[in-house]
Amino acid sequence: MSINHLWIIVSACFVFFMQAGFVCYEVGFIQSKNVISVAIENIITFVITTLVYCFIGFALMFGKSHWGLFGGNFWFLNNLSQAHNSLGFVFVFFELMFAGTAVTIVSGSMTERTRLLPLLIADVFLAGFIYPLYGHWVWADMFTNQSAWLKQLGFMDFAGATVVHCTAGWVSLAGIIIVGPRKDKWDDHGRIKKLGRSNIPFAVLGTFILWFSWFGFNGGSLLEFNDRVGLILLNTNFSAAAGVVGAVLTTSVFIKNHSYMEAVFSGALGGLVAITAGSNYLYPFQAVMVGFIAGVVVVLASLLLEKLGLDDAVGAVPIHGFGGAAGTILLALFTPVEFLGGQTRIVKILVQLSGVILNFVWAFGLGLLMFYTIKKTLGLRVTEEEEDKGLNIVEFADIYSWQDYLKMTHYENLT
Amino acid sequence: MSINHLWIIVSACFVFFMQAGFVCYEVGFIQSKNVISVAIENIITFVITTLVYCFIGFALMFGKSHWGLFGGNFWFLNNLSQAHNSLGFVFVFFELMFAGTAVTIVSGSMTERTRLLPLLIADVFLAGFIYPLYGHWVWADMFTNQSAWLKQLGFMDFAGATVVHCTAGWVSLAGIIIVGPRKDKWDDHGRIKKLGRSNIPFAVLGTFILWFSWFGFNGGSLLEFNDRVGLILLNTNFSAAAGVVGAVLTTSVFIKNHSYMEAVFSGALGGLVAITAGSNYLYPFQAVMVGFIAGVVVVLASLLLEKLGLDDAVGAVPIHGFGGAAGTILLALFTPVEFLGGQTRIVKILVQLSGVILNFVWAFGLGLLMFYTIKKTLGLRVTEEEEDKGLNIVEFADIYSWQDYLKMTHYENLT
Amino acid sequence: MSINHLWIIVSACFVFFMQAGFVCYEVGFIQSKNVISVAIENIITFVITTLVYCFIGFALMFGKSHWGLFGGNFWFLNNLSQAHNSLGFVFVFFELMFAGTAVTIVSGSMTERTRLLPLLIADVFLAGFIYPLYGHWVWADMFTNQSAWLKQLGFMDFAGATVVHCTAGWVSLAGIIIVGPRKDKWDDHGRIKKLGRSNIPFAVLGTFILWFSWFGFNGGSLLEFNDRVGLILLNTNFSAAAGVVGAVLTTSVFIKNHSYMEAVFSGALGGLVAITAGSNYLYPFQAVMVGFIAGVVVVLASLLLEKLGLDDAVGAVPIHGFGGAAGTILLALFTPVEFLGGQTRIVKILVQLSGVILNFVWAFGLGLLMFYTIKKTLGLRVTEEEEDKGLNIVEFADIYSWQDYLKMTHYENLT
Repeated sequence: MSINHLWIIVSACFVFFMQAGFVCYEVGFIQSKNVISVAIENIITFVITTLVYCFIGFALMFGKSHWGLFGGNFWFLNNLSQAHNSLGFVFVFFELMFAGTAVTIVSGSMTERTRLLPLLIADVFLAGFIYPLYGHWVWADMFTNQSAWLKQLGFMDFAGATVVHCTAGWVSLAGIIIVGPRKDKWDDHGRIKKLGRSNIPFAVLGTFILWFSWFGFNGGSLLEFNDRVGLILLNTNFSAAAGVVGAVLTTSVFIKNHSYMEAVFSGALGGLVAITAGSNYLYPFQAVMVGFIAGVVVVLASLLLEKLGLDDAVGAVPIHGFGGAAGTILLALFTPVEFLGGQTRIVKILVQLSGVILNFVWAFGLGLLMFYTIKKTLGLRVTEEEEDKGLNIVEFADIYSWQDYLKMTHYENLT
Repeated sequence: MSINHLWIIVSACFVFFMQAGFVCYEVGFIQSKNVISVAIENIITFVITTLVYCFIGFALMFGKSHWGLFGGNFWFLNNLSQAHNSLGFVFVFFELMFAGTAVTIVSGSMTERTRLLPLLIADVFLAGFIYPLYGHWVWADMFTNQSAWLKQLGFMDFAGATVVHCTAGWVSLAGIIIVGPRKDKWDDHGRIKKLGRSNIPFAVLGTFILWFSWFGFNGGSLLEFNDRVGLILLNTNFSAAAGVVGAVLTTSVFIKNHSYMEAVFSGALGGLVAITAGSNYLYPFQAVMVGFIAGVVVVLASLLLEKLGLDDAVGAVPIHGFGGAAGTILLALFTPVEFLGGQTRIVKILVQLSGVILNFVWAFGLGLLMFYTIKKTLGLRVTEEEEDKGLNIVEFADIYSWQDYLKMTHYENLT
Repeated sequence: MSINHLWIIVSACFVFFMQAGFVCYEVGFIQSKNVISVAIENIITFVITTLVYCFIGFALMFGKSHWGLFGGNFWFLNNLSQAHNSLGFVFVFFELMFAGTAVTIVSGSMTERTRLLPLLIADVFLAGFIYPLYGHWVWADMFTNQSAWLKQLGFMDFAGATVVHCTAGWVSLAGIIIVGPRKDKWDDHGRIKKLGRSNIPFAVLGTFILWFSWFGFNGGSLLEFNDRVGLILLNTNFSAAAGVVGAVLTTSVFIKNHSYMEAVFSGALGGLVAITAGSNYLYPFQAVMVGFIAGVVVVLASLLLEKLGLDDAVGAVPIHGFGGAAGTILLALFTPVEFLGGQTRIVKILVQLSGVILNFVWAFGLGLLMFYTIKKTLGLRVTEEEEDKGLNIVEFADIYSWQDYLKMTHYENLT
């Protein structure tokens, strides 16, 4: 075991910690009456991802390829331990955390009106089919010595801006279309209402946790510890910072009666998502550009969603979908010639665009099919009355914390 | 200094971070009126552990053995710096974090009705005597080239399921017996009431922090960085995931009007505790089995405690006591023959069982003696009136945060 | 890339995580009506530090020295990638996190009555001028082979107790003098009122995060991974623990009607700040002494500030200013002769004292000038009415979370 393995393992632990970041971020952005439901759901989602991805998804993604479409060995981690100079289990551990990130994003966007069980079924399809197959096309050669056809075409996605984040973003988009907006999202006059934000400081904590974890996400994706790591981490940080600048400026230009609060969050996270594609192929100034543009894109995408009457409770579609797509395409614009791999810049842009479109068709299409099927069979949404009551009580019968809350209030009146 | 030292140090930092995880977890599970008291207490407890364990406990645990019963040099870290190829201070730092974990668990279970000072005195005995002595019998050979008699018998406890978690769990059990249940835990008709849960999302954050830290707990326990680390971390993760499945299924079978919320927490943490014994000696499928069974055991143990009228505010006894014992024994059932060390499986099971029973007798017995003595001398419990008021105010005179709260409420009425 | 680079990178990630720690700590200590403002401000502050420090501050701090006063190359990170055996970007990443720590401290102390925009302008000066210039005088030789005149005189500041923490503390002192106390801090009879403490458990989480991050702060400052790391981390931990003891004892002696709560926080953080100067030059017993005395100093400094009518919302001046100064001077008292570098202990004490005084004159003087200028031009403070309403609403128009809160209260009344 070498220093490379150590770096991958530490990075994987950091990426695992994204689960904590998403919990804080999502809980902070939604209504109090649903926070318990969302928080617990995040644990269950990771449990499902662990079992489904390790036993099935990993084999589809990194196993020996059949016609370039899907992998086909390492089922249930068989024959893995001896593989690849003992990298085997280390690599599974690392990749599991990436799958965990993709899956957890989806439930956030649909929260506050979607039942728990249908979401968990969607997790299974996402971790066991949608995510690993697209991943196979781009990353199949990371573990096994074989071709990954999309990568062979020249598609570049260093740490998963498209593979992880866009996939999650477009499945989320399908989900919020099928499940519909939260009932109070638009008032009787069609004016949008802001809901939730039960605990913004908690969301800030979540954002810093995610930012921290991203150093593992991008840095670890080298799969070795070499002299590019410093640059990658600096790029990651620059893009997050520039994302905030881009998002704040866009907000001040395009949004009346704006609060900069949302811009700060979506700029930072949009910048982090976007640089995921190219943190290894850019220099700091280009990373700043990528982050800045991603910040602009995320704010505009949020506006677009609102215009279309779509309701994304935590901004997953603008941040992960649009942010990831922007970063993947911008990479072709900004990367030095040496990383174009012999293609002209125009060709590289078209290749990146194709990969992004293919990802959209795949993830959004299957997402629609999946959520539509679930809706027509199991049902997807809570009743109006349940939505009013809140999912804390509906899903987890959480009346005890209300009792605690009441007692606190009672005591206060005596003071 | 080698890559091994780096891995131990990073792992130790992760294990330190468990302190943050326990704070969030405990605060989330108890009543608002006690959260400040518990949170501050966690800092003080770690302060005491630092001083007592490093200056005394470490010497008893890892010093040169007297009759196999206790160590007897390195008092106050003397002669340590030059010891063991400069591993000295690194090893103390690592082991301190393990002691810190053991000690912090106990105060959680007894919270909401126990005075601060008696708990701190108990910390001193735990960090300076109960924990290091049992630890000496199992781990004395980890640092000094000498025999650890329980390990010589064949007792296996890789990262401390028994040494750390059971010890803490059984001392907790003694504590909750002596201090008695919280006054509102059973109503006038003898029906159990759920108390607290002031902030479940905070508890979820705590659970993810603990999960993250556990990668250091188990991974670092190798005391080197070799090709088993990947497997150990995967096993750790599998057991946590399977623990949730086991606990949720058990809950749905055995508990009427159940909420799955508690099952998710205790399953994940129970799985993590259980795999601590054998993460280095199992393969993923066996880790799944260990976690699953631990999830079952923890839920049943919780029911048992309720039947017995025992009140554990944060589930420390079921999770750390029963979970740790289950994992230690299951290890003998599931480990491949190569790790049986020449013993037959039956013998190994009996050895593991003996080690677990000895630990119970030692930790529970001394725990009873300690808390009984404290109760009869200093007193252990707050008055009924103080319990009603809450320990925030009783222990830390926290009236300011109430004032802040009142002002907030006042402002709201003006809106 | 070697194990040294890996250690620096992991440490830098830990130090970045201090941002999360400061958010939790500050949010916990202030009034609810300002928590959103402070939390978001922490993100923006780090964004500004990233851009200003990397593009300008780093060049001033570590570039080729002009007359020993300031550095003058590496502007905008030019010519950095090839520098120093590929340490270049790694080192910038590491140093950025230190600058981020210094800058974020200042805004905390002035919070609850200072406008956002003036604070951000102060961030620019701090990250781009005040911090890097003093840093140049002490640390200019860390990256480029040249003299750092203050270090040449024998001034020792291993990881920045003076360079980072005192600088931040004294600029904070200037800030709270110029902006004045919060309007409700003293009542009509001149009696001090405690304000805020909206969420003490969150502040405890922040404290543990900071403690964790400090292992990277001090450990990483070696800039290599050698056999001193274990000792450095142990010293760091001892000093924090002893700081709590010192602060609690001082509180019980000097403060009537005391609550130990504040002592626990300021003792731990004061101990961590103080040991930053000498964690590499002391042994555990001396680290305990440094921490203990720092705990005493921080509590007395808090009392002094109150006597002087100064209002520091989060204790930044006592902890970072006085704590850092104490640690820097105590180092000269306690370090073994071998680290005195040929100076007598008396001379060393005088040198340390001189460096601390120079730092005070520089940081406090420029801080006064800066905040005075801002006050006279842009204005620094919100109106009384705005201060009453709280900065959540004033700066970020956060009415939505109030609405969520109201709905929660409404539901509760129906229960």
